[in-house]
Amino acid sequence: MSDKNVEIRLASRPTGWVTADNFERTESPVPEPSEGEVLVRNIYLSVDPYMRGRMNDVKSYVPPFKLGEVLQAGVVGQVVASRNSRFSEGDYVNGMLGWQNYSLSNGQGLYKITKGGFPLSYHLGVLGMPGMTAYVGLFTIGHAKEGETVFVSAASGAVGSVAGQLARIHGCKVAGCAGSDEKVSLLRKEFGYHAAFNYRKSESLPKSIAAVCPKGIDVNFENVGGAIFEAALWNMRNYGRIALCGMVANYNDAQNEPGPRGMMSIVGKRLTLRGFIVTDHPETCKEYVSKAYQWLAEGKLKYRETVTKGIDTAPSAFIDMLKGRNVGKQIVQLAGE
Amino acid sequence: MSDKNVEIRLASRPTGWVTADNFERTESPVPEPSEGEVLVRNIYLSVDPYMRGRMNDVKSYVPPFKLGEVLQAGVVGQVVASRNSRFSEGDYVNGMLGWQNYSLSNGQGLYKITKGGFPLSYHLGVLGMPGMTAYVGLFTIGHAKEGETVFVSAASGAVGSVAGQLARIHGCKVAGCAGSDEKVSLLRKEFGYHAAFNYRKSESLPKSIAAVCPKGIDVNFENVGGAIFEAALWNMRNYGRIALCGMVANYNDAQNEPGPRGMMSIVGKRLTLRGFIVTDHPETCKEYVSKAYQWLAEGKLKYRETVTKGIDTAPSAFIDMLKGRNVGKQIVQLAGE
Repeated sequence: MSDKNVEIRLASRPTGWVTADNFERTESPVPEPSEGEVLVRNIYLSVDPYMRGRMNDVKSYVPPFKLGEVLQAGVVGQVVASRNSRFSEGDYVNGMLGWQNYSLSNGQGLYKITKGGFPLSYHLGVLGMPGMTAYVGLFTIGHAKEGETVFVSAASGAVGSVAGQLARIHGCKVAGCAGSDEKVSLLRKEFGYHAAFNYRKSESLPKSIAAVCPKGIDVNFENVGGAIFEAALWNMRNYGRIALCGMVANYNDAQNEPGPRGMMSIVGKRLTLRGFIVTDHPETCKEYVSKAYQWLAEGKLKYRETVTKGIDTAPSAFIDMLKGRNVGKQIVQLAGE
Repeated sequence: MSDKNVEIRLASRPTGWVTADNFERTESPVPEPSEGEVLVRNIYLSVDPYMRGRMNDVKSYVPPFKLGEVLQAGVVGQVVASRNSRFSEGDYVNGMLGWQNYSLSNGQGLYKITKGGFPLSYHLGVLGMPGMTAYVGLFTIGHAKEGETVFVSAASGAVGSVAGQLARIHGCKVAGCAGSDEKVSLLRKEFGYHAAFNYRKSESLPKSIAAVCPKGIDVNFENVGGAIFEAALWNMRNYGRIALCGMVANYNDAQNEPGPRGMMSIVGKRLTLRGFIVTDHPETCKEYVSKAYQWLAEGKLKYRETVTKGIDTAPSAFIDMLKGRNVGKQIVQLAGE
């Protein structure tokens, strides 16, 4: 065990894109658990788009990060000292912990995971919240049916790459877009998308989407917002569903961006837009995880990660993820498994 | 029977607000029905907001009006000559017919109505498409539940005035807004809204809505779009539903207006926005009409009309309705019952 605990804190609130200045690095001794607590050695740290929203001082479904406090994230780690009867030394756990080498937890929201045939980091991606989000959004919210066309924005990301594959496994036609030729190639060759395009090279997003969804979109799995959302809206079929998972394009706006033009089509096409938060659907998440294990084992479900090493890389990993530089799930590895 | 048929045709497509120049008046002899047709003497003509959309040359759920052709509307009339076995001379009928004194119909979309205790014009309003729209939007789309707060924009209009009353009858808290003090007074005193305000006098629409919906909005019955829609969105409660019935504010825009700011709240609050068209729900409409007869008879459901007389008043009645000058349902009376 290291004798110090490096921690990353929120130094200031970003007013647009996040910069390195918004973070502060501190060091402190590794803490001791009090009665009821466990001490977790953090192994993998997840950086996710929704965290950008928590950096604003705005009321939302998760409270904002506080200035000066250690940032929080999904973490996979190992219990190294326990004064909580639910956990034993050596247990692998998953929960919302800090951007730090060691975290104390009272056990709330912390759950044990089994080290199986896959890296533990999978519990922050395909077997964790992003994968569950893809499943809930596609089926519980979007009601995707066999034979329908599903369009996924941010298609190569942690959520999108799973959403596209689940739709394909379900018998849907799947199209998506991503921000580099490399990612588009991955969508086609690795994740089995039927069609995909690079939105940074598109001269007309509505036409690019129409080209990959010639019959129109039945289910839009919306991760991005902004111009891509608008273009998808224009390509919806009658009775289409839009699962609103997030709007990365808007997270960085100091000002609230207006919504898409063409909202009248929601009436004319009888569309349903529905926002959701994955933690509202715990039973569906369990159902997904058992299926996902099997699909991974069978090779039907593929998974990619971008892994940086060391707590000091967490801020840049987060910024890179927001800028779309990652391929697959962005992970920060803090220690060996 | 008059010996001539005055007709109003679309002379040009409006590029913003509709003006008198967009219409052309023609006269022709009263036509004779061919085999399979009926000739209808038109008694009441409905002018409705959605018709503005049909004046644009844009693909939508109803095809655009054609230049030079007689405009169409919901009409209540009486069969004066029939060569269709389904209809007899003297039958009262309701259907999509022309802005004209006499219409020919092959019977498609034409259905018989019974002259009951209410004026026949009610079949164009509270007992017709607007009333059905209120019912479908509130319950089938919005899932309004007893004790919830319902907010209705364009609350005194043909659809809104029924929506608000149905919500109240169902045990909801009902608030709405309208465009004059006279209409707001009507909302409170005649239609039984629990709270209402004049949006033209509001200094902050979000604050005005918050004042009439102190717990927030569970169901927003959206008729208007634009700034009022945005303000309603900001006041939605978690798991709220928005029934998108129409967006009058956007019908007149030559350019497509952007959607509301704050769409991210759809995710955070897990909102559902759903567009609908009443004709998709024929069974629910029947269910409504039988209930509405009873509520009208019992005095639980109130109804107001603004009636102009003569086919030549149809263009101005339509323009006035779009500008919100009508109180209750705007009707053009062409002949005596």
